[in-house]
Amino acid sequence: MNAYKQLEKRFERLSKIEEAIGVLGWDRATMMPEGGAAGRAEQIATLSVLAHEGLTDPALADLLEQAADIELSEWQQANLGEMRRDWVHANALPSDLVEATSRAVSECETVWMQARAEDDFAKLAPYLKRQIDLIREGAVAKGEALGCSAYDALLDQFDPGMSAATIDPIFEELVAFLPGFIDEVLAHQASAPAPIQPQGPFPEAAQRELSHSLMKTLGFDFNHGRLDTSAHAFCGGTTDDVRLTTNYDEQDFARSIMGTIHETGHALYSMGLPTEWRYQPVGRARGMSIHESQSLLMEMQVCRSRDFLEYAAPMMREAFAPGSDSAEWSVENIFALSTRVERSLIRIDADEVTYPAHVILRYQLERKLIGGELSVEDLPQAWNTGMKELVGITPDSDRDGCMQDVHWMSGAFGYFPTYTLGAMTAAQLYAAAREQDPTIVPGVKTGDFAPLRTWLRDNIHAKASSKSTVELVKEATGKALDVEVFKAHLRQRYLPSK
Amino acid sequence: MNAYKQLEKRFERLSKIEEAIGVLGWDRATMMPEGGAAGRAEQIATLSVLAHEGLTDPALADLLEQAADIELSEWQQANLGEMRRDWVHANALPSDLVEATSRAVSECETVWMQARAEDDFAKLAPYLKRQIDLIREGAVAKGEALGCSAYDALLDQFDPGMSAATIDPIFEELVAFLPGFIDEVLAHQASAPAPIQPQGPFPEAAQRELSHSLMKTLGFDFNHGRLDTSAHAFCGGTTDDVRLTTNYDEQDFARSIMGTIHETGHALYSMGLPTEWRYQPVGRARGMSIHESQSLLMEMQVCRSRDFLEYAAPMMREAFAPGSDSAEWSVENIFALSTRVERSLIRIDADEVTYPAHVILRYQLERKLIGGELSVEDLPQAWNTGMKELVGITPDSDRDGCMQDVHWMSGAFGYFPTYTLGAMTAAQLYAAAREQDPTIVPGVKTGDFAPLRTWLRDNIHAKASSKSTVELVKEATGKALDVEVFKAHLRQRYLPSK
Repeated sequence: MNAYKQLEKRFERLSKIEEAIGVLGWDRATMMPEGGAAGRAEQIATLSVLAHEGLTDPALADLLEQAADIELSEWQQANLGEMRRDWVHANALPSDLVEATSRAVSECETVWMQARAEDDFAKLAPYLKRQIDLIREGAVAKGEALGCSAYDALLDQFDPGMSAATIDPIFEELVAFLPGFIDEVLAHQASAPAPIQPQGPFPEAAQRELSHSLMKTLGFDFNHGRLDTSAHAFCGGTTDDVRLTTNYDEQDFARSIMGTIHETGHALYSMGLPTEWRYQPVGRARGMSIHESQSLLMEMQVCRSRDFLEYAAPMMREAFAPGSDSAEWSVENIFALSTRVERSLIRIDADEVTYPAHVILRYQLERKLIGGELSVEDLPQAWNTGMKELVGITPDSDRDGCMQDVHWMSGAFGYFPTYTLGAMTAAQLYAAAREQDPTIVPGVKTGDFAPLRTWLRDNIHAKASSKSTVELVKEATGKALDVEVFKAHLRQRYLPSK
Repeated sequence: MNAYKQLEKRFERLSKIEEAIGVLGWDRATMMPEGGAAGRAEQIATLSVLAHEGLTDPALADLLEQAADIELSEWQQANLGEMRRDWVHANALPSDLVEATSRAVSECETVWMQARAEDDFAKLAPYLKRQIDLIREGAVAKGEALGCSAYDALLDQFDPGMSAATIDPIFEELVAFLPGFIDEVLAHQASAPAPIQPQGPFPEAAQRELSHSLMKTLGFDFNHGRLDTSAHAFCGGTTDDVRLTTNYDEQDFARSIMGTIHETGHALYSMGLPTEWRYQPVGRARGMSIHESQSLLMEMQVCRSRDFLEYAAPMMREAFAPGSDSAEWSVENIFALSTRVERSLIRIDADEVTYPAHVILRYQLERKLIGGELSVEDLPQAWNTGMKELVGITPDSDRDGCMQDVHWMSGAFGYFPTYTLGAMTAAQLYAAAREQDPTIVPGVKTGDFAPLRTWLRDNIHAKASSKSTVELVKEATGKALDVEVFKAHLRQRYLPSK
């Protein structure tokens, strides 16, 4: 067996271990009784160590080197590149740094939960600082191994190949655009009557049934997946067994329905990955910005559109107020509710227009934190100033300010930008798809998602990690990520008269 | 780290991998969509290979040898013994025999499903023969390594340390007793009016709720376990997260209720294992006959007794016919239904009295099959003759005869006797418990299982695999397994006037 084939065999085993870890994690979030937590942590840790041992086996370095001289197909070459990336991330750090970071992250997350509850940033600060120092040290080492900056090495963990050089000009354009645009949208909204909020309760069983119906409409195959309940919604599993979760608020049906649609976007990506590469690194989803583009395309681009609500608003009425002809269930009213813009403090509650402002603030701050240009002590002040500039309001507590998100507290620096890159990619993909296949929009209006799904499968899902994020977007849409497309989408939806 | 401590560390890792396999298996049976089957098989196979590699690592042989010279506590010594047993079972067979057997078993099971459906034993015979030849070869090799006969080596897989020499005299006594006793019981039953069968439907939700209530009564801790639905009921999981399953027949509430109680007996054993030995071989349940004694003690000894039905029959009435004062829900009637005896063809439908006859037939036949004294071609004839002698009826098809059970078809020879050893052990343990703690029976009558649970925990659960099956029974009851105790139980319950 040549070196490349040996690598494939090794990565296949690692991949199956990772799949098993995924099942254990899903069960923990959805099914496991509380008393099983400690034992489950041990099981997951053991499998994680086995996978890590596989990636740090000294034989891998030689195999990777030998495989470079073997003639490979395009996919095999891309696969070898992804193997190398995995290898670098697993081997770039000395094991004492990995262990120290893991411990510091774990402590920081624990202290954060308490500090946030008590709105006590001073309590958190030393733990966050220690953790960032270690993450920086690791990022510098990974940057050297990958041949990029420390921050780019962090990005690479979530969005392989992404760089600050790609992001900076895009986010700068958004910074120039957003604050003024938000003012305009709010003024426009204020000039019209407010939409009517349907009053609950909206029974959980009815929400669940509607979720199932909409998932089927979008193309989710229940022979290869499930919908369950967990505290935080997520999408996990494997290409042949995709596990979605949501949770239900009986006073607010839109949150769970739109949340489920969002996760279904992720799910369709997983379901569309090429089965013949299932166990190889090249067969994985490309990265978090493309993944988020798939969820946001379904949620923001398609399902919050007037087009889709022509199909879905009557289903909502039927689910929650059968027979009613009240105006609150009209397409126009549901559309207005689904596209309501508001300045808010909390990212996860933010709408499509203000969300990028929340993300850009975090991007600016985390780069400075990693770069050492912003000290942890100064973070709350910098956060509040940035919120005022970008979103237009100032938090009155750190709990609703710089302590709101789990990402930094759990060591995830370099993750935030993928949300907004995903939103922009979604806009650009959907614009291209509609242009390339004129049957897509009529399909969306009537609940026939086959044309859209086919386009996404051909242009994104089936390509898995055989191309870079930037190449995928270019091949599918004919150009690199273009802020103008995203701006045009926002203008057309939120300021239709202009 | 000395050799023993190194072994502990290795077995701890293996144990966590086995736990993970358990979660994957539970999910497959209860949650997994059908389309995930192939991928799940790969995940489980990969973890199984990892566990097997751990047990066949050449370093283990040396460590086991070195550890023999180290001073160890009693539990550590027992642990080392169990490690050695695991090692022998994993290393006794050449890998080509393991592979050939695995393939033959898999083929046999597949052909069996079709052959049974078509009632075509001739179709099955060559596959079963090939499989038995390979199992025999493996059993001979394991017997040499363990220093016992081939059949005892098979027993050892399910009931460590058990032997035909222990079983033979016990089963011979039962053979002398059962056929005549069955005649007497049937005559006795026929002399009284038949019990009234409550008529369904018994809604699934009500059955589930009653199951949950009864599980709590017995002492099942839902912070450390769940009850779900699967095609075949089972109990799995870990000491801190026990997963029970059942399934519901809306025409027959007793099947699911008694089934759930049975599995709860298994569950309480798992929950009572010593946590400090959780990840070591000595911390495991002793074997299948002790495990079955725990489920049958709860189901047959306790919950089908008049004592317990004083407490439970009113709960059943409340669940399925609230407010009714019909005689069908009386303690006497439910007791009569719960202890009805019938000659039947199918083992899994058999009652407490005829069940051992079904088991002994299988024991006699499988010993001859493994010993080469009975050819596969002659199996149907031998089965039918044995059924007539032991149970008193003759199957009119092989489907309801020698092809009914999955055990042999999946390579499990040496398993059947544990059912009846378990039933007898259950009778002996419950008799001893009642004698040693006079508060047990009053507790059972009022739904207070704490005294019984404490006795079982102290005498069985907490001892895990630190003693042999035979020693456990002796220590708990003061004597070896005694057919007279089982016979006395049957006489007292089924022929009370005698």
